[in-house]
Amino acid sequence: MTGVSIDQLGVMDVAGRLDRLRATFVECDALLVTRLVNVRYLTGFTGSAGMLLVLADRAVFVTDGRYREQSAEQIGGAGVAAEIVVGATQAEQGAALAAAAAAADVVRLGLEADGVTWSQQRGFAETFAACELVPTDAVVDRLRMVKEPGEVARIRAACAIADDALGELLPTLADGPTEREFALRLEFGMRERGASGVSFDAIVGSGPNGALPHARPSDRRIEAGELVVIDFGCIVDGYCSDMTRTVSVGEPSSEARRVWETVLTAQQAGCAAVAVGVECAAVDRASRDVIVEAGWGEAFIHGTGHGVGLEIHESPRVASSSTGTLAAGHIVTVEPGIYLPGIGGVRIEDTLVVTPEGPIALTEFPKQLVL
Amino acid sequence: MTGVSIDQLGVMDVAGRLDRLRATFVECDALLVTRLVNVRYLTGFTGSAGMLLVLADRAVFVTDGRYREQSAEQIGGAGVAAEIVVGATQAEQGAALAAAAAAADVVRLGLEADGVTWSQQRGFAETFAACELVPTDAVVDRLRMVKEPGEVARIRAACAIADDALGELLPTLADGPTEREFALRLEFGMRERGASGVSFDAIVGSGPNGALPHARPSDRRIEAGELVVIDFGCIVDGYCSDMTRTVSVGEPSSEARRVWETVLTAQQAGCAAVAVGVECAAVDRASRDVIVEAGWGEAFIHGTGHGVGLEIHESPRVASSSTGTLAAGHIVTVEPGIYLPGIGGVRIEDTLVVTPEGPIALTEFPKQLVL
Repeated sequence: MTGVSIDQLGVMDVAGRLDRLRATFVECDALLVTRLVNVRYLTGFTGSAGMLLVLADRAVFVTDGRYREQSAEQIGGAGVAAEIVVGATQAEQGAALAAAAAAADVVRLGLEADGVTWSQQRGFAETFAACELVPTDAVVDRLRMVKEPGEVARIRAACAIADDALGELLPTLADGPTEREFALRLEFGMRERGASGVSFDAIVGSGPNGALPHARPSDRRIEAGELVVIDFGCIVDGYCSDMTRTVSVGEPSSEARRVWETVLTAQQAGCAAVAVGVECAAVDRASRDVIVEAGWGEAFIHGTGHGVGLEIHESPRVASSSTGTLAAGHIVTVEPGIYLPGIGGVRIEDTLVVTPEGPIALTEFPKQLVL
Repeated sequence: MTGVSIDQLGVMDVAGRLDRLRATFVECDALLVTRLVNVRYLTGFTGSAGMLLVLADRAVFVTDGRYREQSAEQIGGAGVAAEIVVGATQAEQGAALAAAAAAADVVRLGLEADGVTWSQQRGFAETFAACELVPTDAVVDRLRMVKEPGEVARIRAACAIADDALGELLPTLADGPTEREFALRLEFGMRERGASGVSFDAIVGSGPNGALPHARPSDRRIEAGELVVIDFGCIVDGYCSDMTRTVSVGEPSSEARRVWETVLTAQQAGCAAVAVGVECAAVDRASRDVIVEAGWGEAFIHGTGHGVGLEIHESPRVASSSTGTLAAGHIVTVEPGIYLPGIGGVRIEDTLVVTPEGPIALTEFPKQLVL
């Protein structure tokens, strides 16, 4: 364990986000933020219960008694201009929000259509009887696509922890652990280095299991000469990392080597295509073309990548059907793969930040087939 | 690590659940099950994408291409009478469901109001244009309250793993680990014993941190003579365990001892009240009365317990406001606590199965204050 410092991650401009959000309001004149990850983004609050009503010139945060101190500390500490209301019941919290909406003469109140249950929405229709409820789509999520330097620093730290843990543990593959054992070691190694958790359950797919992109680690023992797909990541201060490497303990078959080299070339082509102003679909195409030309097009059964941030999968998607364009500050994965049912699979993935000077890989672990 | 066998957990009657569900239909003549945990309960399918339409005399399960083999194996393997439709897109899957609903002349189609987003509900309103969508509340969840012997066996195994891991690790508290370090060891210990994961992030609250019922483990070092609240659990074949012990390395203050003994008495009183036909509120009262009489009523700031199963918190709730009654096969926690801000806290929790012969604790770890 060489150690990764996560003490100096820099300050984030949490307080500036509310005004950036307001500037995007089109279909509504106020937004009730219910997705906790978006509440966190806008306020710094990390608890498990809270809602934020964003009005034109004020914001009201509601939570319950468990979070009285924590919300005051986190929201106040971030300098966010939001009034905090602690209400013991849903009804009490709703009444405070409704009063604020009424005082601001809200006509069209946006809800996060993917972030409220039907049951909640029916409740809000009564709570905000004077407003028209408008379903909004990914309003905060779009804002989150462009990462501030402080956010990049957190994702970089999470990536560094993953790099460091893999560096210590990869040699132990030669001892023939089961997939489950190796996955558990990796997860433990990242937590030991200060990660608050894993960003998703680690995928360790050896031999034929590698042919399933989302294989759950099994009790299969990892043997020499076979490909092992290792896809894993961790969380630092809420922000995720994501990386995949495919390796073999000892020389694999020549066919396996050809597949691996094709995926590596495809991955490099995808990374090289990442730039400000480039369509996400073009990044997918850059990777996919390499695999199609090598004759394995049908075996690349998923998109090339996705955004990474407070969530492990967020906007923008990097796929053939994507309509978005990369901008400075976007953080995306590039992770082409080839999956041969019954035989095995290869996937290689980095997490990159888009900058005016080109892409910068935050995952730095070497790409080497043979251990 | 003394080892806990999780290989012989017995068969569950997954196939019988659909008919038990149909027998509860009142407000709708068909139900679209979208909560994944409920889809799992009714079909055995453990993937991350799938929906189940339960009609009067057939059931249709839809998923995407990733889960073609897995769904056939799991649903077929459980002997569940559901047709499987694999659709590449939401639209394709929706069309299959709509056709099945039309063929069955469904008039009132129930949705799980807490298990669909507003966005999904709006989509279903178009997909099932010929039906009236009816919001239903916890229809499957109510069924899940009564556990079959195979379910009890899984929860018992998860509890045994937690017991075993704590038994190995509790003595290491004397080495003065941080809360985070100890929580990580516990989580690792349960995974090492075969748990597929933790049922929630372990809570380790030492000294003043114990006063927060849901304290996140911090970098605070655990010192001799102070109370440490340890609340943790794991998952075996989808089923959760939940247990809390409060201990002290060396003798704590006499005040701390009095608090601990009061909570133990309250916990025993709550457990003793658990029986078939008893109101959940009466179990809460049995625990609460002890704490109120000791003068700490204001410091017992949560309900006494909750159901445990495929989810760590499920029905029935055991609180002063609960309206339910315990039945044979219910599995509930009894976990009173006393929280003194700035000073510390005590919580003691077991998970119990309700039987006609009385309650049986599935968590068996001794309750001992001083390590």
